[in-house]
Amino acid sequence: MLILGIDTATKVCSVALCRDKEPVAGYEINLGRTHSEGLLPQLNQLFERTGIKKRDIDLIAVSIGPGSFTGLRIGLATAEAIAYAWRIPICGVDTLKAMAYNLPIEGVVMAPVLDAQKGNYYLGMYEWRKGRLSETKQAAVVGGEKLMEKLGSVNKQVVLMGECEKLFSQKLPDNVAIAPDQVRMPKATSVAIAGFEQAAAGGAVEPFAIDINYIRRSEAEELWEKKQKKI
Amino acid sequence: MLILGIDTATKVCSVALCRDKEPVAGYEINLGRTHSEGLLPQLNQLFERTGIKKRDIDLIAVSIGPGSFTGLRIGLATAEAIAYAWRIPICGVDTLKAMAYNLPIEGVVMAPVLDAQKGNYYLGMYEWRKGRLSETKQAAVVGGEKLMEKLGSVNKQVVLMGECEKLFSQKLPDNVAIAPDQVRMPKATSVAIAGFEQAAAGGAVEPFAIDINYIRRSEAEELWEKKQKKI
Repeated sequence: MLILGIDTATKVCSVALCRDKEPVAGYEINLGRTHSEGLLPQLNQLFERTGIKKRDIDLIAVSIGPGSFTGLRIGLATAEAIAYAWRIPICGVDTLKAMAYNLPIEGVVMAPVLDAQKGNYYLGMYEWRKGRLSETKQAAVVGGEKLMEKLGSVNKQVVLMGECEKLFSQKLPDNVAIAPDQVRMPKATSVAIAGFEQAAAGGAVEPFAIDINYIRRSEAEELWEKKQKKI
Repeated sequence: MLILGIDTATKVCSVALCRDKEPVAGYEINLGRTHSEGLLPQLNQLFERTGIKKRDIDLIAVSIGPGSFTGLRIGLATAEAIAYAWRIPICGVDTLKAMAYNLPIEGVVMAPVLDAQKGNYYLGMYEWRKGRLSETKQAAVVGGEKLMEKLGSVNKQVVLMGECEKLFSQKLPDNVAIAPDQVRMPKATSVAIAGFEQAAAGGAVEPFAIDINYIRRSEAEELWEKKQKKI
């Protein structure tokens, strides 16, 4: 099965092609450019260089959050439009979970985080056991202090991944290490592999049947609700 | 420092840009195409999409073997030509060592291998300690059985990386696991990061001052020598 993976949940714009779990091509740019401008040309170059045709693609796997509201919307809209046009199924992959596929190693706890603004973080916790990924704590929004407390209370080595730059200056609990740069941020290769596994377990759907997993609503939605209550 | 990384030591064609140790862009294609046809167009696309100009590049880091004789020659020739034309220094990175940067995690031994033909393997052994990579055994050419024996004798968990497909069907020692596909093969991002560290330690040189590290000579050279002896 040939899978096209897309991840635009952070400032990284990443696209990839995998045959089952084997990476065929991966292409990621981390320059903070607008995904609306960058995603399609990057995809286009990937197809051009690999010579892979749209008829060869069996599944689209797309990162569906949590993460940047705008980035996620661009990624999902693009993935759904392609899936619809090419008549192939689509699979939505949790952004935090996908990051744990960057470091597929046993014996440590992966703690991917994404910036939820105002000092808050989306936090997931995962562990690799016999080649399979387990979610050890349900993903949640936590404040910076609570985050440190949660990581420190794990009785294993914890690898902090994702958008954790703002935590670099803080004192980390003794059992917590920051993942090195080359495996820290989202990768579409990881999304494609996770998507392949989800699809094998029946998790692929028709285009337009996927919702973004914001965990928390956008500020605009929260403000709108507050205003409605006042009226 | 902005580093351009190149790895063509295996069938993977990989180029990357890193700012110090942070990946700016990574682009790898694993389709077994000829590097002589693929490398320059891929580099060209990378520069086009990132908008990074040649004057921005401070260093070229290139994978110098062991590995495929032809692949290595194409990679080094390209890297040296670019370094010469752009008047920037170049840094040769051991292909086995660079692979250990794919999985920067402590507590396990990384064992990257490359196919040395006729049932032999180039084997390196590395360990991450406090964020720094140590070579725990000098790289060498070993036969398949000897390889298993060496890995089995390590008193830690060993992660087998690189061109180890032919070993998949064999019974591995209990302490040995095969690295998952997404981190198994060479990545130019890893080459760029290793090159940055080598350059910081004074390891960058003028173009054309680098030799490929074949460990073993090519079959053509060995045959030529045999013939010379007969004459």
